[in-house]
Amino acid sequence: MVESWSFLDTVESNFRPLVVIELAKGTKEETIEWFAKRIVDKKADGGAQLLIKPLVTENGHENIYLVGASHLRLLLGAETVGLVKECNDNSMRTFTYSSRKTFKDFADDNHNFLTMAECQYIIKHELDNLRAKNEKMIPGYPQAKLYPGKSIVRRLLTSGILVQIFPLHDREELKKLRHSWYGRVRVGYQPLDDIRCYFGETIALYFGFLEYFTFALIPMAVIGIPYYVFAWEDYDKYVMFATFNLLWSTVILEVWKRICAILTYRWGTLLMKRQFEEPRPGFHGVLGINPVTGREEPVYSSIKRQLRIYLVSLPFVCLCLYFSLYVMMIYFDLEQWALDYHEENESNFSSLMLYVPSIIYAVVIEVMNRIYRYAAEFLTSWENHRLESSYQNHLILKVLVFNFLNCFASLFYIAFVLFDMKLLRQSLATLLITSQILNQFAESLLPYWLQKRHNKRMKKRTCSQKTDIDLSLAEQVNMEKEMGTYLGTFDDYLELFLQFGYVSLFSCVYPLAAVFAVLNNITEIYSDALKMCRVYKRPFAEPTANIGVWQLAFETMSVISVVTNCMLIGMSPQVDALFPDSKMDLVLTVAFVEHLLLAIKFIMAFVIPDKPRDIQMKLAKLEFESLEALKQQ
Amino acid sequence: MVESWSFLDTVESNFRPLVVIELAKGTKEETIEWFAKRIVDKKADGGAQLLIKPLVTENGHENIYLVGASHLRLLLGAETVGLVKECNDNSMRTFTYSSRKTFKDFADDNHNFLTMAECQYIIKHELDNLRAKNEKMIPGYPQAKLYPGKSIVRRLLTSGILVQIFPLHDREELKKLRHSWYGRVRVGYQPLDDIRCYFGETIALYFGFLEYFTFALIPMAVIGIPYYVFAWEDYDKYVMFATFNLLWSTVILEVWKRICAILTYRWGTLLMKRQFEEPRPGFHGVLGINPVTGREEPVYSSIKRQLRIYLVSLPFVCLCLYFSLYVMMIYFDLEQWALDYHEENESNFSSLMLYVPSIIYAVVIEVMNRIYRYAAEFLTSWENHRLESSYQNHLILKVLVFNFLNCFASLFYIAFVLFDMKLLRQSLATLLITSQILNQFAESLLPYWLQKRHNKRMKKRTCSQKTDIDLSLAEQVNMEKEMGTYLGTFDDYLELFLQFGYVSLFSCVYPLAAVFAVLNNITEIYSDALKMCRVYKRPFAEPTANIGVWQLAFETMSVISVVTNCMLIGMSPQVDALFPDSKMDLVLTVAFVEHLLLAIKFIMAFVIPDKPRDIQMKLAKLEFESLEALKQQ
Repeated sequence: MVESWSFLDTVESNFRPLVVIELAKGTKEETIEWFAKRIVDKKADGGAQLLIKPLVTENGHENIYLVGASHLRLLLGAETVGLVKECNDNSMRTFTYSSRKTFKDFADDNHNFLTMAECQYIIKHELDNLRAKNEKMIPGYPQAKLYPGKSIVRRLLTSGILVQIFPLHDREELKKLRHSWYGRVRVGYQPLDDIRCYFGETIALYFGFLEYFTFALIPMAVIGIPYYVFAWEDYDKYVMFATFNLLWSTVILEVWKRICAILTYRWGTLLMKRQFEEPRPGFHGVLGINPVTGREEPVYSSIKRQLRIYLVSLPFVCLCLYFSLYVMMIYFDLEQWALDYHEENESNFSSLMLYVPSIIYAVVIEVMNRIYRYAAEFLTSWENHRLESSYQNHLILKVLVFNFLNCFASLFYIAFVLFDMKLLRQSLATLLITSQILNQFAESLLPYWLQKRHNKRMKKRTCSQKTDIDLSLAEQVNMEKEMGTYLGTFDDYLELFLQFGYVSLFSCVYPLAAVFAVLNNITEIYSDALKMCRVYKRPFAEPTANIGVWQLAFETMSVISVVTNCMLIGMSPQVDALFPDSKMDLVLTVAFVEHLLLAIKFIMAFVIPDKPRDIQMKLAKLEFESLEALKQQ
Repeated sequence: MVESWSFLDTVESNFRPLVVIELAKGTKEETIEWFAKRIVDKKADGGAQLLIKPLVTENGHENIYLVGASHLRLLLGAETVGLVKECNDNSMRTFTYSSRKTFKDFADDNHNFLTMAECQYIIKHELDNLRAKNEKMIPGYPQAKLYPGKSIVRRLLTSGILVQIFPLHDREELKKLRHSWYGRVRVGYQPLDDIRCYFGETIALYFGFLEYFTFALIPMAVIGIPYYVFAWEDYDKYVMFATFNLLWSTVILEVWKRICAILTYRWGTLLMKRQFEEPRPGFHGVLGINPVTGREEPVYSSIKRQLRIYLVSLPFVCLCLYFSLYVMMIYFDLEQWALDYHEENESNFSSLMLYVPSIIYAVVIEVMNRIYRYAAEFLTSWENHRLESSYQNHLILKVLVFNFLNCFASLFYIAFVLFDMKLLRQSLATLLITSQILNQFAESLLPYWLQKRHNKRMKKRTCSQKTDIDLSLAEQVNMEKEMGTYLGTFDDYLELFLQFGYVSLFSCVYPLAAVFAVLNNITEIYSDALKMCRVYKRPFAEPTANIGVWQLAFETMSVISVVTNCMLIGMSPQVDALFPDSKMDLVLTVAFVEHLLLAIKFIMAFVIPDKPRDIQMKLAKLEFESLEALKQQ
């Protein structure tokens, strides 16, 4: 069959496999031939103009294909996706093929001008945007309907013909990266630029944020330790600690924006124009003309989308939140009931019964979380966002609100309804520490161990004792295709977000939280690095200019924490004792301080510029040039 | 002397006077000659390449000069200042001379392509940016030092050689505008586009905001009337009114941003790139290279500016605020003392004494306001901002904070220290109504009357009984140069801002405030229009894309008003009666409602897009094109 693919003649001799496509076993010949032809076809004919090669292993042909592209094709693709690279004069500019000579390190024979991650991103982008022309269906599968403009890869995936697409690891590079990242025990920064080259900007930015956040927590942790050591319980010390924390959290979030701008400017993503990106693969609509670019692409009314968001998604989310609160109240009732039962008839059975509500609640929460996550993904997909970033933001917002409530509602209840500070401190410590330990175990160490065992078995089966590096391409592909898929930075950020909540929301009750957070984050860096390098398939690089909606989420959390901390301090007996005559004065004073802190926070956020001055200047210069260019037209 | 100006040969026969320059009497010949030469000199030689003509009146030559420019020069100037005009395809584009044919209504012989206001703005811009080359001083005035890059006009103004520069009125156009604006009594919108053509965008935007704000207040006024008519005093109705007001004020401010975007897009200023504007005339520094544009211009370290702002200006403003509060406390003490004195020895003298503190306080406030305004202008000028807009924003912020305190501190004191709602309502009504009446009188009617009397006297002196239209150019110039100078929209916005404060800060105590505000604003539109058309010299047009720092000021006021209204409602006896057992519950409930309202406000501000969708699309399209143009380079 392979021999009959006459269009594969164009494959260069130095074909470098970049991306793996795994089709379902038993996929019809005509489908494969049509798909491969579409991938290889010229851009002018609506193809992707890439190279494709079947992977031939010892067991013969397994419906696995390797996709690559010629050097020229990749350069043209880099222009299409709008990559920004450094020029010879050290400025960052959008890469175009015609101006290629002005870019740093560019040479016609330098195949490392684009990093492997960039090449893979380009190929993914081209595959995703391979759209049906006049096909009414996928050849061989009449039930898999197509219409002009529909993403072919998306349809192949949803109809189960395409099992997965993933980029290949570069064993050599990965080994180097592993070594500099976590190979030796040392104190120092992570090799963020190397991480970015290998895994792309989104993941590098996550690790950058994790590292920055850990450093930023250290002052809080250092100040928190004496509170624990000397068992300080004076209100004035707590007030000082809380005030410092609240202002500090504003500063670190503002400074992160600046650092993020520095990083993404260096990586070129700060300048990438996301609003002109192609619609995301899942986006559907009738084929029309994009009013901005004038290009033909699916079009969907934004009013319809708004209606879906506000009339369906929003009420649904509110309902879920209400339901979650309702379940929590049932849990507290059950708890009370179990306690009463235990007091009435004290027995082994009754003391065992004490644990039942917690267990039920934990299980119910887990189930709710999963169902909700599924529903949120379905709803956000149904909202039909044009851009991947917009889809992600809406999904994150939905999941975030629910997770926030699930994690903190019980703590809020203990603090502000039961007024039990001791129980609050206990619950906080238990929740923080157990969640951290469980997370690290479930997220990295367990998968790593499973993966390792699996690899060993694989190797035994192939009866070879080679190290990773010496694996043949076929062996490498077969091993990688069995690895788990990294589902994006969402869960990692969520973990940090909830941790930030534990640290800041009740910081004046439990100053030691920051210490645990720092300790956790140091190991988290290593376990996350391990996870990226050893456990999962290589993920596709995804350019990004900032941490997006997470910045907003962290800022909102820091505003909420001003309110909670002021309330906690106001409720403490020491502060209470300061106003023996009038509770009124106490509450008014607390409210005044709270408003003052909030005002300071907003003024600080307003005064600290989001981008360092030199980055601002560079951006202004670029905009000025682009304006002058338009004038010259 | 006029005959010796050989360089005036280039003056076109159809010289159209646009701008008037008045030099001090007795200015040395050599200075005049040098200045005129610099104005006429070619751009390449560092001149402004404009046309200049002395004004010859019956009394001979009076050191008054008329400045104009050739049609071609104005078109090139339009490119320099970056005017945005409508193209034949209805899109808005930055005007360039080379692409002039693509613009709507452009024809080589159509001298109305640029409005007169635009031409005057261009000439002002060119004059302001006429900079010294190698001159060490102004010829004839060794004490008026110059250095390369120093704005000549600025130095001439500061050394008193140049008395004033102002644009000429267009009697014909002005009559038309007056007629359509306020000539006939009718209900309807103002002719904003005509106002913009005649007075420029800044003033048109002010009138647009005034009109919009008046309409936006009508619902508040309508809902407020029954409270007065039926003397409703129920807390629940007040709560409803206040809640409506607070949310409504958020909505109107967000919607204004959208309307503002629609207006300024149509006027082209939304697209004008302000960051590339030339440094403001008062900006000084050593000549260097602008890192953004690569052009030679004065450069001043931004760190020095920051230091000046934070180490000098900020402490000074804080000190002034403290001093103002201190004076207010003295006033309340004096008031108390006068009251005590009156009670002790009741006599005519003592009852007269009751008014003394108020009078003293009013005088002191007025004096403080003036001194502070002067100091603020000096400080902001000393901060040496590069851009006029940045200078204005810093000045406005300084004056705003002080005026806010002066106006509202006594009301806050009455409300939240004296807890006297009756007195608060009285003071509010008195302050609002008297300030509105006084303002309208002092701002428009009085100057109008003075101006009219002056004009009559002028006419008598020249013994002519012609109407305005028939005046000769010399007579027109002589009349206009005596008119007052309009100092910008600052005081007009400040008036609206303080009015917004009276309406929203204590809205639940005095719902009728909105009614008075609406009535005031309707007459304000007419009196301001009168002021612009009849009282003042024509001001130079100033392109602007939004109301700048005022938007922020109004938004901040609406946040503060949430806090004050919640406090007022919490203090009302009706709400008090709802929580007979626990004042604590009352305060906590109020605080909860306040936080809820604030959260809703922020979410609303976040959710409502700042620009309508079609404007967003048009902007994105333009950016996309500019990017594509850069790629093509």
